[in-house]
Amino acid sequence: MNQSMLSNTKTIFCLFLFIYHSTYLSAQNTKLSGMDQMKWKKVLPGVWKAEIGELQLDPFNYTNPPKAKAIQNLGEASFPFDAQKTLHHQTPTRIGIRLPLEEEEKIYGLGLEFEGINRRKQVYTLKVDHYGGVKGYTHAPVPFYISSKGYGVLINSPQRVKIHVGVSNRKDSQLPELVDRTTGGNKWAARPLSDAVEASAIGTGMEVYVFAGNTVLEVVQRYNLFCGGGVLPPKWGLGFWHRVHTQSSDQDVYKEIADFEKNDFPLDVIGLEPGWQSFAYPCSYDWDESRFPDPGKFVDALSQKGIKVNLWENPYVAPSSSMYSSIKPYTGSHTVWLGEVPDYTLEAAQKVLLGHHQKKHLDLGVSGYKLDEVDGYDVWLWPDHASFPSGHDAVEVRQLYGLILQHLLQEHLRKQNRRTYNLVRSSYIGASDKSAVIYSDYYQHKPYVTALANSSLTGLLWTPEIRSAKSAEEWIRRFQTVCFSPMMMLNAWYSGTKPWSFPEVTDQVREVIVLRKRLLPYLYTAFHNYQSSGSPPFRAMVLEQGFAEDEKLVGGQLDDITNPYAELQRLEVSDQYMMGPSILVAPIFTGEKSRKVILPKGKWYDFYTGQFVGDGESITVKATLGQIPLFVKDGGIIPMIAEGEDLNSDTPKLEVRHYGTTTASYLLYNDDGVSYDFENGAYSITELVVSRRKGGKLQGKRKLTTAYQGFDYGKIDWKWMSAGK
Amino acid sequence: MNQSMLSNTKTIFCLFLFIYHSTYLSAQNTKLSGMDQMKWKKVLPGVWKAEIGELQLDPFNYTNPPKAKAIQNLGEASFPFDAQKTLHHQTPTRIGIRLPLEEEEKIYGLGLEFEGINRRKQVYTLKVDHYGGVKGYTHAPVPFYISSKGYGVLINSPQRVKIHVGVSNRKDSQLPELVDRTTGGNKWAARPLSDAVEASAIGTGMEVYVFAGNTVLEVVQRYNLFCGGGVLPPKWGLGFWHRVHTQSSDQDVYKEIADFEKNDFPLDVIGLEPGWQSFAYPCSYDWDESRFPDPGKFVDALSQKGIKVNLWENPYVAPSSSMYSSIKPYTGSHTVWLGEVPDYTLEAAQKVLLGHHQKKHLDLGVSGYKLDEVDGYDVWLWPDHASFPSGHDAVEVRQLYGLILQHLLQEHLRKQNRRTYNLVRSSYIGASDKSAVIYSDYYQHKPYVTALANSSLTGLLWTPEIRSAKSAEEWIRRFQTVCFSPMMMLNAWYSGTKPWSFPEVTDQVREVIVLRKRLLPYLYTAFHNYQSSGSPPFRAMVLEQGFAEDEKLVGGQLDDITNPYAELQRLEVSDQYMMGPSILVAPIFTGEKSRKVILPKGKWYDFYTGQFVGDGESITVKATLGQIPLFVKDGGIIPMIAEGEDLNSDTPKLEVRHYGTTTASYLLYNDDGVSYDFENGAYSITELVVSRRKGGKLQGKRKLTTAYQGFDYGKIDWKWMSAGK
Repeated sequence: MNQSMLSNTKTIFCLFLFIYHSTYLSAQNTKLSGMDQMKWKKVLPGVWKAEIGELQLDPFNYTNPPKAKAIQNLGEASFPFDAQKTLHHQTPTRIGIRLPLEEEEKIYGLGLEFEGINRRKQVYTLKVDHYGGVKGYTHAPVPFYISSKGYGVLINSPQRVKIHVGVSNRKDSQLPELVDRTTGGNKWAARPLSDAVEASAIGTGMEVYVFAGNTVLEVVQRYNLFCGGGVLPPKWGLGFWHRVHTQSSDQDVYKEIADFEKNDFPLDVIGLEPGWQSFAYPCSYDWDESRFPDPGKFVDALSQKGIKVNLWENPYVAPSSSMYSSIKPYTGSHTVWLGEVPDYTLEAAQKVLLGHHQKKHLDLGVSGYKLDEVDGYDVWLWPDHASFPSGHDAVEVRQLYGLILQHLLQEHLRKQNRRTYNLVRSSYIGASDKSAVIYSDYYQHKPYVTALANSSLTGLLWTPEIRSAKSAEEWIRRFQTVCFSPMMMLNAWYSGTKPWSFPEVTDQVREVIVLRKRLLPYLYTAFHNYQSSGSPPFRAMVLEQGFAEDEKLVGGQLDDITNPYAELQRLEVSDQYMMGPSILVAPIFTGEKSRKVILPKGKWYDFYTGQFVGDGESITVKATLGQIPLFVKDGGIIPMIAEGEDLNSDTPKLEVRHYGTTTASYLLYNDDGVSYDFENGAYSITELVVSRRKGGKLQGKRKLTTAYQGFDYGKIDWKWMSAGK
Repeated sequence: MNQSMLSNTKTIFCLFLFIYHSTYLSAQNTKLSGMDQMKWKKVLPGVWKAEIGELQLDPFNYTNPPKAKAIQNLGEASFPFDAQKTLHHQTPTRIGIRLPLEEEEKIYGLGLEFEGINRRKQVYTLKVDHYGGVKGYTHAPVPFYISSKGYGVLINSPQRVKIHVGVSNRKDSQLPELVDRTTGGNKWAARPLSDAVEASAIGTGMEVYVFAGNTVLEVVQRYNLFCGGGVLPPKWGLGFWHRVHTQSSDQDVYKEIADFEKNDFPLDVIGLEPGWQSFAYPCSYDWDESRFPDPGKFVDALSQKGIKVNLWENPYVAPSSSMYSSIKPYTGSHTVWLGEVPDYTLEAAQKVLLGHHQKKHLDLGVSGYKLDEVDGYDVWLWPDHASFPSGHDAVEVRQLYGLILQHLLQEHLRKQNRRTYNLVRSSYIGASDKSAVIYSDYYQHKPYVTALANSSLTGLLWTPEIRSAKSAEEWIRRFQTVCFSPMMMLNAWYSGTKPWSFPEVTDQVREVIVLRKRLLPYLYTAFHNYQSSGSPPFRAMVLEQGFAEDEKLVGGQLDDITNPYAELQRLEVSDQYMMGPSILVAPIFTGEKSRKVILPKGKWYDFYTGQFVGDGESITVKATLGQIPLFVKDGGIIPMIAEGEDLNSDTPKLEVRHYGTTTASYLLYNDDGVSYDFENGAYSITELVVSRRKGGKLQGKRKLTTAYQGFDYGKIDWKWMSAGK
């Protein structure tokens, strides 16, 4: 046998081994011991469902029906991975599932997370709680994940799903090569590569949904549309929010408003903290007569200044509440802060709440609520072993409580054709159509931005609210971020800090608030797209086509104190995000003199100057105190309220900016801003078309579309931001 | 009606109200909706048990039988609280219990905790895990708590018990006064006073045990005796331990030993890290032939120098292991670090392990193991939904894994009449008779001391092992602590630091090691008391009669970033503890120039000088680099090996110190130090009696007792430490 023959024989033998091995592994994978295959049925184009056992408290009870037509518009798709490799099993107390995962897949989602984007190689226990401590304990731990390959998986369970994202290896699965730790150096891994996502939850039922998508964004759209589409908040909700001290009286609020006027700051919503009530923690939900002797007059007075009233509450009922005796038959075994805990899965309990709130608040013109303490720590909330009159498991009630309250209040107001915009401290599956923004007691600026990015992946809205700052620099930096978020809110009621409390940056604070308000036509249109197509108004960069995620593994050096398993750390880009179709937001954090920005493929331009800044590359921008770095895509069209216009006018003149050199068009949305009439066609879509005249100069035109119902803006001033640059 | 009549009427009316109120509350408390009363049966004097449903994997399968006679010696007792107020209920997946709690009760225990002593007003999820992150996640989360009132409660469950210690209030319980948060200031509490301990666990069965006690110590003794009594380690286990680099060969170890000799440091146990094996992480358990060509010769060579060999292992089996094919039929569904996970609840699996270890290690003279990775994070260990061939729930197997392995190896060696002393990274219920010391990757000096105190409350031994230090000061401070702990171990294999690596403190390091070795007669006797009476050798101060716990509540100032609920913080004395009957240990931490020591009631004396230092008071002691502050009770008798004696001699001369002015006697224990013959009476108890001669001078006498079997010490040199002071 010569060398070449030997080599050929080797090749053939290896090939044989390879084929044998592959077949064998595939056979193994579909026949893992003790597990059964899931049975999938198509529910809508690109959406499949598998049922295991019987679900108890279904989160989908608290969402609106899927936007089936919009999902159909996304088109048919094939099941995105090998259905034979989807397995489940059940023990007397637990259901487990296993779904395939390929080596190069990145996994996103799992709700409001403050750290990282790619969730792979972690275990999350998805528990509604304050953020911190355990992976997956957060205000909105949505059991929905998205693969970079273009599909999403929703584990529909009211229990705390524990999910192993590409970590943990079955002995009968495809195992990576073994490495001896003593001699293997960096090749040994504390978390070996795994070929599956595995998850489990206590209980007797679970549903699994799979969402297809040609892109990661399309997966998110399908999920959002399946949950009823995105929410379109009232226009006032996108204005400036300010919360006053808990002991404030009506007179204190009038004084506060006068101060805003004196300092020339816009003000759209006043939030009252617990003390508006006669008793709070637990809550009476009745106005405190000493601080608010005439609530109706108070709400009217603010309304005349174009200011809405938002009321803080938590769900735990004080004995002194006027709704106490009515709600008492429908409360759980345990109190929270000594207040009773209504079982709002019961219609009778819902009626008590809504009846009370209608009469005492909503009839007076109150616009919505800040639903606090629906996330709380175990030391505050009811224990897992509590019981509720509906018979629902206490863990399930707790996991869904924030979602249920959002749904109740929103659907109640929908019947009155009134949109609302609330705050809430917990949310869950199916939240995209909920008109509520999540907030937290946690207060770290950079993780707040990561949360803003992550919230877009699972149908959530998040506000990086401002409570206080240690310096003028931090003050303006936090304002810049919150002005580019779903809710522009100052929640400094405790610290008493006002927008003008750091005089050296007062002008810059005012400027960024005004800029946000001027961007309303653009932002409101982005929310319309959320509502109709499921595409979120604020988006993580991984939802952007052409974005090359800059993920690095660093470290891995064994240290017997800080890293005894020599684990690698993942560095990701989680501090920049998209607002609407064209604007990339890259906040600056206190102390930074410059920052890195990763631009997706295509030409990008500075928002303020129109200058070209780069194309699909990493750039470094210098920090300027007065400006948050914003970048616009080539061909980006940004409709804004023209400078000097009344920011609350219904038909302000517009400044429409165009960036770069590409001709483009943009569909500008408008409606009455407050009602649900848009659902019956009462809105306008105007096309803004940028083309080139003969000779090459850009020109802009406004074109009415067939969806025109008279919701106008004023005259347009076109601005060619990049012309001649 | 005159004033006095009015006042009398008022008094009578109030009295009536009080009686009515009390009766009513009591009636309420015993009829909480949805809960049933527990049925208690006495199992031993002062020990009661209630069964709920059917327990699955019983932790008591892995303990030795109760020391019934010793429990009887503690005497009869009445049920320590109102049995009518002990309630339970069950859901399809969970069992909940409720036990009464009075306002002034403090609650201790719950396993190896690194923070605080009083567990009240917290929720603990008792999960075997690395320490950190969640309250109750720790290496040995024992569901046993002790009340300052003098009773203990063990929740016997193999699941992760979630326990609400005086936090959470049922609506039908005795509720404290309501306070309005807006106006109530500091009176409002985020954690209102609760009248119960409530707990729950997933599963279909649970047992609850109640242990009575005239003192907190007696409660702990009953619990320990119920779990088989405390452990008496072999004498060598109380010597100096040193672990060598994972890549060490036999020659490297010989060199290391020579270095110890050259530097004049005692050495009793050498620990080999993973690399002694042919494959590790997962483990082969077979010797690596290149590093240890002749393991029998190696163990013999060390044995001739009086040095024992301890082998590191984790339980996850490598395919290259010589026991792989035999264990394979008995492994769980998931791997850990790609190694298979034996189901050691199965006798067949136990046999494979023990058979292999006997032949490959124990027959050669290996003394025991370091059982690592039995606690691990969720990202490393098997998931909760894994399955095991025995059918046991994966959570239960994981919770008990460390306990099971300790039990297996110890009982296996017991059959050979060989005592062992192991290291282990997880433990659980019933650990007091286990000859294993827990350690952690966590590495904070002060919390290590708190852990040492807390470990005594639930039958655990803990070592504040030394891995490295940032300065010579930290080096000596850590040595001082570890020398006054159940295992004096240097685990600096990775950092390579030697006892003499900080030359400026080498002498002090040597001195404290020698001091510990000289104290062996005293310490070994303390372990004997642990074994026979359940009284731990190292004890939290709350186990000491006359100790007034110095607990303060501080803080409570609302801060919107760090303390939004204005919670109070509890300051406790958790950094001092007792060793044996008479020595109070108060370690100094790096950077401290002095420290506060709380002395229990009675006169106390400086260990080194015999000077009186105080009586039932808080004193401040100056830090001296070379000394760990030690204090001895009035009448304390401390038998030590005399200065200059061979520290490993079987019959060294003794120096017996007496402190203070009180006459006293002390029962000195001795046996062969290695076997279980003591269980059949092969030991000696010698009484050391200090009395006064005529004229008042103290004199000491050695008296043989009826329990004398010839295990002697040499001549005694009596030292009257406080004479003339």
